[in-house]
Amino acid sequence: MTGAGRRAVVIGTGLIGGSLGLALRERGWHVTGDDVDAARAARALQLGALDAVGTDPEAEMTFVATPVGSIVGAARAALAGGGVVTDVGGVKATVVADVDDPRFVGGHPMAGSELDGVEGADAGLFEGATWVLTPTLETDSDAYTRVRAVVRSLGAEVVALPPDRHDSLVALVSHVPHLAAASLMSLASQGAEEHAAVLRLAAGGFRDMTRVAASHPANWLDVCTENREAILDGLDRLVEALGDMRERVAGGDRQALRLALEQARDARIKLPSRLDRPGDLIEVRVPVPDRPGVLADVTTLLAELDVNIENLETVDSPEGPSGVLLLVIAAAAEPRVRRALAERGYRPARRHLS
Amino acid sequence: MTGAGRRAVVIGTGLIGGSLGLALRERGWHVTGDDVDAARAARALQLGALDAVGTDPEAEMTFVATPVGSIVGAARAALAGGGVVTDVGGVKATVVADVDDPRFVGGHPMAGSELDGVEGADAGLFEGATWVLTPTLETDSDAYTRVRAVVRSLGAEVVALPPDRHDSLVALVSHVPHLAAASLMSLASQGAEEHAAVLRLAAGGFRDMTRVAASHPANWLDVCTENREAILDGLDRLVEALGDMRERVAGGDRQALRLALEQARDARIKLPSRLDRPGDLIEVRVPVPDRPGVLADVTTLLAELDVNIENLETVDSPEGPSGVLLLVIAAAAEPRVRRALAERGYRPARRHLS
Repeated sequence: MTGAGRRAVVIGTGLIGGSLGLALRERGWHVTGDDVDAARAARALQLGALDAVGTDPEAEMTFVATPVGSIVGAARAALAGGGVVTDVGGVKATVVADVDDPRFVGGHPMAGSELDGVEGADAGLFEGATWVLTPTLETDSDAYTRVRAVVRSLGAEVVALPPDRHDSLVALVSHVPHLAAASLMSLASQGAEEHAAVLRLAAGGFRDMTRVAASHPANWLDVCTENREAILDGLDRLVEALGDMRERVAGGDRQALRLALEQARDARIKLPSRLDRPGDLIEVRVPVPDRPGVLADVTTLLAELDVNIENLETVDSPEGPSGVLLLVIAAAAEPRVRRALAERGYRPARRHLS
Repeated sequence: MTGAGRRAVVIGTGLIGGSLGLALRERGWHVTGDDVDAARAARALQLGALDAVGTDPEAEMTFVATPVGSIVGAARAALAGGGVVTDVGGVKATVVADVDDPRFVGGHPMAGSELDGVEGADAGLFEGATWVLTPTLETDSDAYTRVRAVVRSLGAEVVALPPDRHDSLVALVSHVPHLAAASLMSLASQGAEEHAAVLRLAAGGFRDMTRVAASHPANWLDVCTENREAILDGLDRLVEALGDMRERVAGGDRQALRLALEQARDARIKLPSRLDRPGDLIEVRVPVPDRPGVLADVTTLLAELDVNIENLETVDSPEGPSGVLLLVIAAAAEPRVRRALAERGYRPARRHLS
């Protein structure tokens, strides 16, 4: 998909915002951007991530790439224009609820870098990355479809999740692990106060586990505020799991310990490194009533089935208030998708793509 | 120190035992060795890690490099001869107490490899590594001095610790982190049963943190038995630290949370990579495509520039086919390294380590 002649705005020109600017401009978009830090916006311009600094009333799409605490304000300001607005924040439920606008589509690219700031910006940052979008029942389906298409044009794979589901999942795979890494690092360094040799003993595994603790705390403070409930729940579950481990070690129950470690090992080995590209594709056509929420319903259903949507279009029906949703998915996944859709009351049909 | 004319025995010819054989022979020692698995001993001989398979009553030093559960028996058998005996096990207090002989010096080289077994043996494995020795009040000082001198001749840095102190420190930097990694991995995979998308969200930090959970459980079962008390204490401290984190998150105490995360960050950044080196160091971060040859390309480039790499880590990029190389080099060399990397098409960034 080319962006020739299309206009976007990027608010917040750090690593993600800068990378967005570079990636969009590479595809022909005209990108205007700004940042609370004027020097940072100027640097983004200098690095070719922006065409201009400032605002663009004609932009069709605005990406809010500010820290989590500033998203709601920036999104509301952008919605005063006529375009669609999305964000890239690591927490979604509170943001989506507070912005509360059909033209706002919550988003979270699961891409990052060891590099901080616009200096680390990279047009290829989103290639192959998972990019979560969080449509709700109120989301305008045209707004969602447009954001989704642009995100995919940047090379990302879209996973649609309800906002609160996103938050509980990232608590488990990101926020809680980060707090655990910080806790492990603190324990070791307390040990080091008594005896500096402790840090000499830190071999590769420990270095890997605590690397994330070296990231800037600033980003994490907003995350811990905004995603408090899911983080507390995740911490409770981690403490419970550690308690189970403690019991196995204390009881000398080698069999139970072996089983637990083997299960963890299997899960780690199976951790997908990147998305598999399916071979044969098939198009599923789903007649849908033209009302808000249908898109969110269908896309989150497919995410729950762990089926990747290769392409998605909405086609208006010429007759009356209904349309057709065209989904392109792996042929192998089609039977269970069709079954699940039918169970929800949809009447899907399929067409092979040759 | 040359080992010409000196004789050693290595019991257990896996990765560490094989590496010991290679390193000692390189320095002129005559090395006899054996293994419960005759084929493994034969392979060590074939690979040049041994001069002969069997026992050597004239050996002045025996290295016991068996799994932890077999050390005591092997050490006692070796002490029937007249030489000094040391081991390389990851747990020390129970081993040292059970062997209970002035000519036995407990040891633990903090060196490992991604490779298992004698096939991964490497004469340079101990160069620059920390090697803990655990002399006690009963240890013969001549025995200790001799073991220490040999260990240092292999390129390792010796840190002397009381056996129980060693055990509580490795519980903190190795055993407890491993159990935490397994617990985090289990939580995420339980989440995945409900929702496979969870694993798609697992970005680089999570992958780093759980990598150690992919190691073979077998080694960890002995460790959890032999180092039970220290591990239980470490788990209790981790749970307590997580409870403190929980309190900061639940109370919305951003100041306390910031302080805790900043302390952890400082400690992680100061984590010494190996031996301390003089002079100012700087970290250079190089985003790299994940393909064979990149590491060789960058490291040989630095060798051509005559720049020593003080530390090198590779960090997976979230989900994508790329990663980041972290190079720690002398600050003075950084401008020309960055220039040379940029000329080769890399986009390096730097971070001061202070």
